[in-house]
Amino acid sequence: MQAKVMLISDLNEFELISILSKVLDQGHASWGASDMNHLDLAIANGDDAAAWTPNSNYEVFTMDTCVENVHFKSEFSSWHDIGWKALASNISDIASMGAQPLYGLVTLGLPPTVNVQDLKEMYQGFADISEEYQMMMVGGDIVKSENVFISISLIGGASQSPLTRSRAKVGDSIILTGPVGSSKGGLLLSQQGLNSYNEHQTVLINKHCKPYPHVAQGLVLSNISNACAMDVSDGIFSDLTKLCESSDCGAIIDSESIPVDPELIKCFPDDFLKIAMSGGEDYVLLATVPANQTENLKQDINVSIIGEITPKDQGITVVAADGSKYDHNDFLGWDHFR
Amino acid sequence: MQAKVMLISDLNEFELISILSKVLDQGHASWGASDMNHLDLAIANGDDAAAWTPNSNYEVFTMDTCVENVHFKSEFSSWHDIGWKALASNISDIASMGAQPLYGLVTLGLPPTVNVQDLKEMYQGFADISEEYQMMMVGGDIVKSENVFISISLIGGASQSPLTRSRAKVGDSIILTGPVGSSKGGLLLSQQGLNSYNEHQTVLINKHCKPYPHVAQGLVLSNISNACAMDVSDGIFSDLTKLCESSDCGAIIDSESIPVDPELIKCFPDDFLKIAMSGGEDYVLLATVPANQTENLKQDINVSIIGEITPKDQGITVVAADGSKYDHNDFLGWDHFR
Repeated sequence: MQAKVMLISDLNEFELISILSKVLDQGHASWGASDMNHLDLAIANGDDAAAWTPNSNYEVFTMDTCVENVHFKSEFSSWHDIGWKALASNISDIASMGAQPLYGLVTLGLPPTVNVQDLKEMYQGFADISEEYQMMMVGGDIVKSENVFISISLIGGASQSPLTRSRAKVGDSIILTGPVGSSKGGLLLSQQGLNSYNEHQTVLINKHCKPYPHVAQGLVLSNISNACAMDVSDGIFSDLTKLCESSDCGAIIDSESIPVDPELIKCFPDDFLKIAMSGGEDYVLLATVPANQTENLKQDINVSIIGEITPKDQGITVVAADGSKYDHNDFLGWDHFR
Repeated sequence: MQAKVMLISDLNEFELISILSKVLDQGHASWGASDMNHLDLAIANGDDAAAWTPNSNYEVFTMDTCVENVHFKSEFSSWHDIGWKALASNISDIASMGAQPLYGLVTLGLPPTVNVQDLKEMYQGFADISEEYQMMMVGGDIVKSENVFISISLIGGASQSPLTRSRAKVGDSIILTGPVGSSKGGLLLSQQGLNSYNEHQTVLINKHCKPYPHVAQGLVLSNISNACAMDVSDGIFSDLTKLCESSDCGAIIDSESIPVDPELIKCFPDDFLKIAMSGGEDYVLLATVPANQTENLKQDINVSIIGEITPKDQGITVVAADGSKYDHNDFLGWDHFR
């Protein structure tokens, strides 16, 4: 006998929100009190709005939305990981400002045929990453839509002036806080429709489905004066181009110094550099710091120095081991409408 | 010769965001400096996140999303007014907490065939209502989607403890800060597909398409101890039910005292009460205050006393002029999934 599958059309809006809120409440209840000292929530879930007493010098505010079959496919990822990753992309924006994520809201757009169990798993993903990063989801809304979308907005707090993209100076070192390309590698593998994955492939798939944003790294960077940062969401070549435009400068990158996971090289021995330069969604930080700060920085976080900021008229150059220059078209990232 | 219509697929994501950001920037540039004293934005549009220095005792945070053909139809409303109203519903949530709207973010979900001019008009709607309520849209994102959706998140600031739904006490007066039902009346008229509207009908259509949330009224209410408030978004009968559930109480309502616009009575002489009780999206405030505070309140804002909070076991009763009781089923509001 087949178990009855509960669809969201079997419930009214308030019953559904109540079921999903419980998943978050149970997640938050498992925290220790000391994990919550930075939060000062006055009104949570269930009123017209959430409310808190601000206790940061700066607040940062971001919003990021993912759409089924555009940003994710439920056949490639569990609903838990879809929820985790949707919130991860917001946390990463907060991390890139040198801030700590605090309070989030989520709106789900759903067709009536969505399975309630899938949504509970998605909410468990929200709860798990919230606990990992010591933030709270404080409310949500559900609307009817032809396709599934997950729209999240997130508030973060910072004690230092937030990291921007616009302070890079000629001579600054360009750094990455972690390897790039693995998420794209995982995506390419999942698109191949294999029946099973070896251990190297599994590492890449996990990096694609369940990324860990670099909040701690962003907090360390925010203590360095004149640091500049953004998260790698569209691919480092594309993201570095934006940083250089904002800062009115150019850059030279040494392709040999780009940090990549050994699993990416094993799975894609011919293409790993192209994947590393163009692949998005690694959610590590791309930053610039004054060159004399890199040694200090290495004492606190893993840092790879990948190049140097140059004058604007030199554009962006990627240099190979033999000194030749790569063609930019190999490294272009993701554009949603083309 | 027909003018070329520019579609969003003719632009890349960054070109499109740049065009739309300009509409907001021009709107904000028209403000006087004194209008902006309550805002302390450190980083605006164009970085990974917006940032500000918090200067309110409390911050409130809401998110509201509307979907084409579920919450709005572009054949019934201009794109300007669709933008205005999408932001209005968020501002109203902030108003219902007794707070001032401050900073907003918007995500648009768009099919590639959307016309850029329509989006510019929608953004003009955001700019106009932002100026009206002295708040700023500080960023946005655009994602590809099968259907159009507009997801907005909004931060507000309050000096007093935010108004909740859960503090109503037996004996409190139940009040409305403005007439109800006109928005639903306007919706019903627009669904009739008339070729033109008379002056009464035009009033209702405008109330439906371009509502003015009651921010000033919420700020006044937040100065009354033990006041309770929510905005009328789903219809007063449905919304009052939620308030009573949160406050663990019942209510008795005098149907004769429900404030309605004369135009609603003229256009719907037989059904105006049912429309007033069940129609949503008027965005006035439904509040409860200690009975001895109503006279004070009337000196500052327009207030209609419509009933009284009762013990929970008495449920919610709506009494007619002749003392008989109405059937609740006449007054049920909007449920998105049924």
